[in-house]
Amino acid sequence: MIEYRQIDTGKAGSFCEKLFMAYGFTAEESKTITGVLIRADLYGIESHGVQRLVRYHDEITSGQVDIRAKPQIVTESGISAVIDANKAMGQLAGVYAMKLAIRKARENGCGMVTVRNSNHYGIAGYYAEMALAEDFIGVSMTNTEAICVPTFGSQTMTGTNAIALSMPADPVAFSYDASTTVVPRGKLEVYRKNGQPLPDLWALDANGKPCTDAAEVIENIIHKAGGGIAPLGGAGILHGGHKGYGLGVIVDLFTAVISGGLTSNYVNIKSGHNGICHYFTAIDYGIFGDKKSIKANMSKFLQELRDSKKAEGMSRIYTHGEKEAELMALRINSTIPVSEKTLEEMKNIAVKQGIKDFLIGEY
Amino acid sequence: MIEYRQIDTGKAGSFCEKLFMAYGFTAEESKTITGVLIRADLYGIESHGVQRLVRYHDEITSGQVDIRAKPQIVTESGISAVIDANKAMGQLAGVYAMKLAIRKARENGCGMVTVRNSNHYGIAGYYAEMALAEDFIGVSMTNTEAICVPTFGSQTMTGTNAIALSMPADPVAFSYDASTTVVPRGKLEVYRKNGQPLPDLWALDANGKPCTDAAEVIENIIHKAGGGIAPLGGAGILHGGHKGYGLGVIVDLFTAVISGGLTSNYVNIKSGHNGICHYFTAIDYGIFGDKKSIKANMSKFLQELRDSKKAEGMSRIYTHGEKEAELMALRINSTIPVSEKTLEEMKNIAVKQGIKDFLIGEY
Repeated sequence: MIEYRQIDTGKAGSFCEKLFMAYGFTAEESKTITGVLIRADLYGIESHGVQRLVRYHDEITSGQVDIRAKPQIVTESGISAVIDANKAMGQLAGVYAMKLAIRKARENGCGMVTVRNSNHYGIAGYYAEMALAEDFIGVSMTNTEAICVPTFGSQTMTGTNAIALSMPADPVAFSYDASTTVVPRGKLEVYRKNGQPLPDLWALDANGKPCTDAAEVIENIIHKAGGGIAPLGGAGILHGGHKGYGLGVIVDLFTAVISGGLTSNYVNIKSGHNGICHYFTAIDYGIFGDKKSIKANMSKFLQELRDSKKAEGMSRIYTHGEKEAELMALRINSTIPVSEKTLEEMKNIAVKQGIKDFLIGEY
Repeated sequence: MIEYRQIDTGKAGSFCEKLFMAYGFTAEESKTITGVLIRADLYGIESHGVQRLVRYHDEITSGQVDIRAKPQIVTESGISAVIDANKAMGQLAGVYAMKLAIRKARENGCGMVTVRNSNHYGIAGYYAEMALAEDFIGVSMTNTEAICVPTFGSQTMTGTNAIALSMPADPVAFSYDASTTVVPRGKLEVYRKNGQPLPDLWALDANGKPCTDAAEVIENIIHKAGGGIAPLGGAGILHGGHKGYGLGVIVDLFTAVISGGLTSNYVNIKSGHNGICHYFTAIDYGIFGDKKSIKANMSKFLQELRDSKKAEGMSRIYTHGEKEAELMALRINSTIPVSEKTLEEMKNIAVKQGIKDFLIGEY
């Protein structure tokens, strides 16, 4: 069993900001990165929250992330841009690019911005949701290191390749954020930790055969020994695995192919360069008519979904983003759960970076 | 076993054109509708080919499809439009709308066109692929009558809700076209016909519990008695069914919510009005830089996918659209397989519409 401590949300955020400043990021940059990280913990997406600090620490101190890098516009039109992140922190490249997409949408109805040579940017949904404040539709995608095996294959070729899309609605926005794989890698790690066999459709061994041994699959992914995670729809084609495979390719198209960056199968294979690519869109849906009535259409449809007949034994049908918004409301002025292991890692990093007042005696 | 006959492709097309003219469509309109229909048979997507003629016959003769309707622009900007199809044949509304999206992309880099009050438009991929001739990216989506149950629900709320996306590449374009459900309804019909139990994850009974009885599920869908098909990812959340559910909602957002049309849960519930909605996008990917090099990036990535290590016992990894392109090359100047049942239906329709020279003696 993993032990958790409840950590004051505000203090967790202050610590992250202090830490990123200690690496050499500006106060504003540190705040931006922290905002994305803490949002994941507020949403209950532990895998993308402060748990990632140890990975970021390694990438920053090894030079994989360039703390002085400034994202740069390579090509631009009224509704589009290609950005070279120049190895910047993914969150900084992401926020910069999505702000640019939003500005273009404000001026011309739509903004499509693709980014190359970046790093891990946290939860895709954060950037899509930046559009909500403008009453726009937001889209965000990212490729990652290859962990997913194409249908009929036995070698990882695409990444977790998440797609996020947000659309304003009352009382709560629609906010979709999901990988195009059947599960993200973190899920396999939970099964390994618990010594449970994986469900049949999730993963493939080195020969491309279904495999329920989590440890074997994880080790094979790390060592690129063959096998990996199945696309959404699972291994084979019976349950539509070829659809998830195609969605993963679409993410690589918009993130890497169009930006001239690295497709998933090249991400993070050269030491010192992740080369992750992102894609962002903002759409002022007012280009399709009266915004109030379009937003009302969306709110009505989402309410109908929530109000539709429940399965036996189920009390609630969720719309996407609802759970996360509710959890955030509970946690934002309160605490977030952090595992003992993550706290230990954070403490070690704090010592290395010379931060003396790390939450000590406070948890 | 279903018996098939090989029918001359050109003659099948001529028959369809004659038939649509007999209903009162112009020669040009009849050619357009036929083009979409026959393409499905060329691609091996039998469910959307001439097999649909009987359904179209019913919809045209009952007035559900208005043969005199002209699609009309309701709202328009340089990069967007909302179209009211006014109950036009779906193929006519679709081709009109995608042509408009392409024109906007030619002029302004991108065109996004949403369509309400339409009818079944055939294969989504046809419209996405119209963009390929312009060397553009094409997107096409459609909602349908509700057949899919949201995660934790027991009532159909979203449709097959297909997403298609095409991107130019050599030697063969990437062309994704798939429902956001685990399977389309046609697959259930095949299982019923063969008396086979459905795979566990595909469908739900009236109480929202997994159900392997194809006949029961189909009858329930038809009578809106509860239950239906699971979203891509399957029933429940273990294999990511909530992801497919969200993708289905996204299709309703772009097709119905933005156009002010009917969301899937209202499609075809009022007699005499299908109210199906579509969405189309064309993107001149030259707004992101040199088209030759972007297309080369895509071709390279697709080739790497095809060349990647195969699963044991598999000789080939496909990229999306490859199989269909190969089948079309074989069939276009030759024959398409048509089932005895479909031929019988076509013959009956021919008689009703006074077409005397129906392929008689030719098959």
